Amino acid sequence: MLKVSIAPDGKEYPLPTEAEAVQEKLLLKKITEEQRAMGRKIVAVQGLGFVGCVMASVVADATDKDGKPIYYVHGHQRASKRSYWKVPMINSGVPPVSSSDAEVPQIFHRTVVEKKNFRATCDDSVYSLVDVVVVDIQLDATKPAFGEAEKGYCDITAFREGIRTLGQYIQPHCMVLVETTVPPGTCQKVVKPILEEEFTKRGIDIKINPPLVAHSYERVMPGAKYVASIRDFWRVFSGVNPQSIELCREFLSNVLDVENFPLTQLDNTNASELAKTMENSYRAVNIALTLEWAKFAEQIGVDIFKVRDAIRKRKGTHDNLLRPSLGVGGYCLTKDPVLANWAMGALFNVEGSLDFAIRSVNVNDTMPLHTIELISKEFSSINNLKIAVLGVSYLEDVGDTRHSPSKTLVEFLRKDLAQVKAHDPYVEAWPELEEIHVHNDLKDVLPDADVVIFAVGHSQYKQIEPKDLLAICKTKPLIVDCSNFLSDATINTYKGLGCKVRGVGKGHIVD
Amino acid sequence: MLKVSIAPDGKEYPLPTEAEAVQEKLLLKKITEEQRAMGRKIVAVQGLGFVGCVMASVVADATDKDGKPIYYVHGHQRASKRSYWKVPMINSGVPPVSSSDAEVPQIFHRTVVEKKNFRATCDDSVYSLVDVVVVDIQLDATKPAFGEAEKGYCDITAFREGIRTLGQYIQPHCMVLVETTVPPGTCQKVVKPILEEEFTKRGIDIKINPPLVAHSYERVMPGAKYVASIRDFWRVFSGVNPQSIELCREFLSNVLDVENFPLTQLDNTNASELAKTMENSYRAVNIALTLEWAKFAEQIGVDIFKVRDAIRKRKGTHDNLLRPSLGVGGYCLTKDPVLANWAMGALFNVEGSLDFAIRSVNVNDTMPLHTIELISKEFSSINNLKIAVLGVSYLEDVGDTRHSPSKTLVEFLRKDLAQVKAHDPYVEAWPELEEIHVHNDLKDVLPDADVVIFAVGHSQYKQIEPKDLLAICKTKPLIVDCSNFLSDATINTYKGLGCKVRGVGKGHIVD
Repeated sequence: MLKVSIAPDGKEYPLPTEAEAVQEKLLLKKITEEQRAMGRKIVAVQGLGFVGCVMASVVADATDKDGKPIYYVHGHQRASKRSYWKVPMINSGVPPVSSSDAEVPQIFHRTVVEKKNFRATCDDSVYSLVDVVVVDIQLDATKPAFGEAEKGYCDITAFREGIRTLGQYIQPHCMVLVETTVPPGTCQKVVKPILEEEFTKRGIDIKINPPLVAHSYERVMPGAKYVASIRDFWRVFSGVNPQSIELCREFLSNVLDVENFPLTQLDNTNASELAKTMENSYRAVNIALTLEWAKFAEQIGVDIFKVRDAIRKRKGTHDNLLRPSLGVGGYCLTKDPVLANWAMGALFNVEGSLDFAIRSVNVNDTMPLHTIELISKEFSSINNLKIAVLGVSYLEDVGDTRHSPSKTLVEFLRKDLAQVKAHDPYVEAWPELEEIHVHNDLKDVLPDADVVIFAVGHSQYKQIEPKDLLAICKTKPLIVDCSNFLSDATINTYKGLGCKVRGVGKGHIVD
Repeated sequence: MLKVSIAPDGKEYPLPTEAEAVQEKLLLKKITEEQRAMGRKIVAVQGLGFVGCVMASVVADATDKDGKPIYYVHGHQRASKRSYWKVPMINSGVPPVSSSDAEVPQIFHRTVVEKKNFRATCDDSVYSLVDVVVVDIQLDATKPAFGEAEKGYCDITAFREGIRTLGQYIQPHCMVLVETTVPPGTCQKVVKPILEEEFTKRGIDIKINPPLVAHSYERVMPGAKYVASIRDFWRVFSGVNPQSIELCREFLSNVLDVENFPLTQLDNTNASELAKTMENSYRAVNIALTLEWAKFAEQIGVDIFKVRDAIRKRKGTHDNLLRPSLGVGGYCLTKDPVLANWAMGALFNVEGSLDFAIRSVNVNDTMPLHTIELISKEFSSINNLKIAVLGVSYLEDVGDTRHSPSKTLVEFLRKDLAQVKAHDPYVEAWPELEEIHVHNDLKDVLPDADVVIFAVGHSQYKQIEPKDLLAICKTKPLIVDCSNFLSDATINTYKGLGCKVRGVGKGHIVD
């Protein structure tokens, strides 16, 4: 039976046959030789996920002072049923991610179709042909118990195998640039030893040809500036030896806008790996601490968001202060503290723990329960309540549902036997909670609602008029504002129309 | 026997006699009448401490569009042996605080001697004569157990008595502006009820004349911009009723540079009181979380300060990140989280606690123990070690020793029977640790030292050449850098001269 990989849009792509695989190897060599003859260096990007696919297009889009491409880019994705579809999709010039950033389809079309210097493959032998590998393998933290991030760990099995593949193929002069967010210590303690081991097996003298390993983390943000957040933003980098550092500096300088966003070099890869996990932990802590003040504010008639605005007037010292909300989602703040905390024992065998960082993950992961508390106070029971959840992505005006706090909200409401309906204008399917259908029309979720939860700050929700919303409900639901999405005027209008309104950190509206 | 109050410079001031007190009352009335005849409004500042005395001078210095003083200011300080000396000192035109800010003596001379619209008194009856009282009574948190800020509370007895005195004297039209950092809820739950009670006793109908109570917190910083940090900086304010709010807005607009630093009004006094304690808790948490990363960095060859610089490149989202150090001192970050946490139960009777805020106080209060750990690792015992502590104030290039972490450092080193000598170029006496003589000459602390601790970043310490320091020591001491005061080049010079160097968060220097 032919194996197929199914894209999110439902289109089926058969995995390559053995004959096709043989052809592919020959083709890769041919392309690479042609591109080298044109004076281009050859780059592979390992892993065509959320970061890798756009990074690959950015590398391919880089030009020299004459406007000619500097690199040819082979994007590599393993031939799994889950992910293979990305290869043919990219090779048709279409990005494998949806985004509100218009530059995403443009840069894929420009590099794949026009410049023809970006192509995806699933053949491992591609690594033998390249000068640079950018590692963008997905690496997640596992949190085995809800609200107990201290038990979290990082399963690096797949990551190690990915690096081992590189060790089996790359030429000694090839620079391996780890871009994946990794536990501090990974380049020194995992990547370098595996490459050394595989080099030695291949008869390469690692005294003469030590593996060239560098680290530079991305600071990508989904949304309207997705491509720019990779290309036009400050980067930190480091390497395991002077040659790696210089190759990394040269590569990043070719690819990124380092004139406007100068590079920062750190002493060693431990430092740059630590920097990434610390900067996200910093934000995670800053969010978590707002919840305790929000709860206090709710009980003493205070609007924590106006307090926050007052505090943030102090630019440079207080303007990073974040806001309480339904909770924290996405792929960084929820896991990076766990990666770093795990690394202390697992990679360095040192004592200690990152208490503030880990506590913040626990507070943030369980934050949705506070919204349920706000609802519980207004009803004798959650059982059978009709609840409309507006927003299931983790970021406003973005359709990304990874680690969305709405998932926790919906799961716990359903545990309490509420009848939950979910809406999101940007989300077609909710892979992390497949049993919930995500509606795109408010008319499918609002009628008869007892509670309407403004969970995410999508523009559509901020703009809807109370009378229009209530006309669809045909009830006077409890309105719950999870993060200051409704103005005081809007809240007063809801109240005037007979609704109760409650909100995270919004003590001033409690009657 | 005549009671005297002794100033820090040793000068003795006899407290006023009964006859002098009678004269003072008459004088206050006469002055006030004269000043009113000149069209000036009359202000009292209650408490001439660190904030109050400078605030009083700033109010007196405020002028109308014709450059004429708007207010006459009576500074009030109780006739206690501890503090009375401030009254005659101010009235001689001399500030009762020492500061590196040249504007401090200038503004006192200008208002007291030249404009003659600022005068200090210890007579309570002054409050019956004024239009505005600015409350700057000291209010501290008590932390009964080291490292257990959750047990902390706020003894408001003296504060209540101060407010009661106002209630007994002020006229109903007088606006009471609380500037002291208070536990959230204080204006509503403490100040207003006491004034209502005293008004009622005096036969004032509080339905017709409700007390006018406002709140606006200062953001004063000692150091070179002491006066400007009161006058030329953003202010948040609020009031218990519309009239208080308007009077407060008018007063602050007359006194502060609100053109360049616009006022922010909050809904109620709970909100502005919460804002002050939250903004300082935010900083306390941001310092505390850096310690756990500093400890990690020390063990994996990383310089946490370079990591911090790399992270802080992200302006507006990451540039508030603070730094680990010997510890946290001063009068705000050490107590404000405790005031807020205490208020939840004590003033509002609500459940909950400010866990991140309280934990941060515990981490910050005990942070000096980490520096002792760094020393302990290098010696078999602290017992009898000769240790020179460079810096006992809580801030660089400032002589303020309030809640200085050097106190904890010295106390614990002495508990371990080290022979500690302390140096600070800005400190004459150490009131919080009187048994320790603070030397002003390095030649008195460095000779024979086994350990030299760079505890505070005074310029003198940052500038001293390693060879000059070691020439005084005549030893090869362990050099301990508590917060990145020494450059890598300086550290390498110390190493080249035969010293070991260790530092908080400085893993890259560990050999």
